[in-house]
Amino acid sequence: MTAFETESERLPTAADAAAAAARLDGHAVVTPLLESALVNERVGGRLLIKAECLQRTGSFKFRGAFNALSQLDDRERAAGVVAYSSGNHAQGVAAAARLLGMRATIVMPTDAPALKRANTAALGAEVVLYDRYREAREKIAADIARERGAAILPPFDDPRIIAGQGTLGLELARQAQAIGARLDAVLVPCSGGGLVAGCALALATASPGTAVYAVEPAALDDMGRSLRAGERQRNDPDARSICDALLAPMPGILPFALARRHVSGGLAVSDREVARAVALAFSDYKLVLEPGGAIGLAAALAGRIELTGRTVAIVASGGNVDAEIFARMLADAGETD
Amino acid sequence: MTAFETESERLPTAADAAAAAARLDGHAVVTPLLESALVNERVGGRLLIKAECLQRTGSFKFRGAFNALSQLDDRERAAGVVAYSSGNHAQGVAAAARLLGMRATIVMPTDAPALKRANTAALGAEVVLYDRYREAREKIAADIARERGAAILPPFDDPRIIAGQGTLGLELARQAQAIGARLDAVLVPCSGGGLVAGCALALATASPGTAVYAVEPAALDDMGRSLRAGERQRNDPDARSICDALLAPMPGILPFALARRHVSGGLAVSDREVARAVALAFSDYKLVLEPGGAIGLAAALAGRIELTGRTVAIVASGGNVDAEIFARMLADAGETD
Repeated sequence: MTAFETESERLPTAADAAAAAARLDGHAVVTPLLESALVNERVGGRLLIKAECLQRTGSFKFRGAFNALSQLDDRERAAGVVAYSSGNHAQGVAAAARLLGMRATIVMPTDAPALKRANTAALGAEVVLYDRYREAREKIAADIARERGAAILPPFDDPRIIAGQGTLGLELARQAQAIGARLDAVLVPCSGGGLVAGCALALATASPGTAVYAVEPAALDDMGRSLRAGERQRNDPDARSICDALLAPMPGILPFALARRHVSGGLAVSDREVARAVALAFSDYKLVLEPGGAIGLAAALAGRIELTGRTVAIVASGGNVDAEIFARMLADAGETD
Repeated sequence: MTAFETESERLPTAADAAAAAARLDGHAVVTPLLESALVNERVGGRLLIKAECLQRTGSFKFRGAFNALSQLDDRERAAGVVAYSSGNHAQGVAAAARLLGMRATIVMPTDAPALKRANTAALGAEVVLYDRYREAREKIAADIARERGAAILPPFDDPRIIAGQGTLGLELARQAQAIGARLDAVLVPCSGGGLVAGCALALATASPGTAVYAVEPAALDDMGRSLRAGERQRNDPDARSICDALLAPMPGILPFALARRHVSGGLAVSDREVARAVALAFSDYKLVLEPGGAIGLAAALAGRIELTGRTVAIVASGGNVDAEIFARMLADAGETD
């Protein structure tokens, strides 16, 4: 069996996303699809905001985590779960583990937002800190998992995680249909690619003809470059962005394989454009978005995609942001260039 | 006919709220009912947040305005509508008028939040400014209405307005039932009393046994005092509060008549407690609430009502707040006393 065949066999399918939706039913929030008449008028099209910041734990990550952990058997559940995450996957895993009565250990970078660290601990998880720029989180997690016989739940390179995130795409397609909206495009924040791959997979069957774009910080546009190059590209290790949730060094293997089939391309935006989107989400949608959660809206507002006369859904993937950073983004957005 | 009979005849009924719900169907947002496992754990009870800040125009006011204006006949619609408002009723009336193809003129105080003024104008309404502490907005509005033959739509002392706001109570009762929650109490922000009266009226039949409380700024606790005194009481004209939406000088006649029958009492909170609630809505619910919209949550967090082992719904009535004020509240909330 070639490496590709192995990978292909592990790729989740639309049926996996549908099965995940059944598992999440009653546990995950059906997050609302919001719009603003004033914003629509200003952009000359219809923007639909999938307010996933209102999800349990404040981000989409609960979907994949619960889908994965709820499939473990009793013995595996008893051994607990280990995960590494800058904060949103951490909270998603912690919340899912708690609901399932499992012990969770989360390896988090020292520079993760205080709110994300505090909430992960408050959800009952043990938090182990590491230096994002000096240590390999995968190794730390593997060592802990081996010691305890626990399962590792990776943040995006896992078919159960991708299928779980795909439930967001299914929900979005259903909600758009319910209001009679035909989706021309969907903009999805992208780090390792689990969310955009899951959504694109789900939408390929649930909303055929809808183009799905991966939106990334301009300095960390690995998915966009990878799609253009036809193979996975790395980010500059010195690259930084205000989007603390979108700092993965390169696309995951499975997400990239799915993205090649189902994602139309990558869109890159600046931190300044992200701050403006955070400010618009605040003033016009009354939503608290973290920088990474606002990047899809940023791409739309910055003109990275045609909006005139079109219907574009935007996945507002999370809202876990510290107050000081949020206030600074609102202030920055108000300043002229 | 006595004055009381006249008043009683004009009092809206639960059937009026149900009819309003039918009129609003497809026009108003069915705002989500949110909760946080972490907050519930901290308070030892179940808090359900009715996220009405996600309503069209960012507050509940669209409900009453659309219910009232959609009942006008063609001739009345052609004459337009005049309203006075510190900002949320202004936007509600402007948005409803626009949907119905009507001209709207809004009399607003000079100190209304910039966002509320800007959005009212952006919704196509003509904005006329007045000095809140020197001029009578009712007279200015009446003069304009007489000149143009236009209808005046008061912010709360109107049966169609109250019935429209009551649709929020109906929706809340249905949503609570859908998740198997029995509501022990509902906390509703109160200024002139249209929202709390409408909600209490609706809940009296849709959720019997649920206590409804009017929540007010401590310096403007006219509804609470009025309920205790058995007749309408005025606020000190020099009283100020950060809650710009809750500055009505006394309860409306119709809201007070309904509140005497259906509201259990008033709860009063300080501006500092409101800032803390705004900060919690930000960090734990990812919602942008304006001060007045967070006052119900403030009452719950400040211990004004027993939460242990109980299910309490909180109407988060609006989110129209300027960025600088929001940032200041987040900062204030973080400081210790």
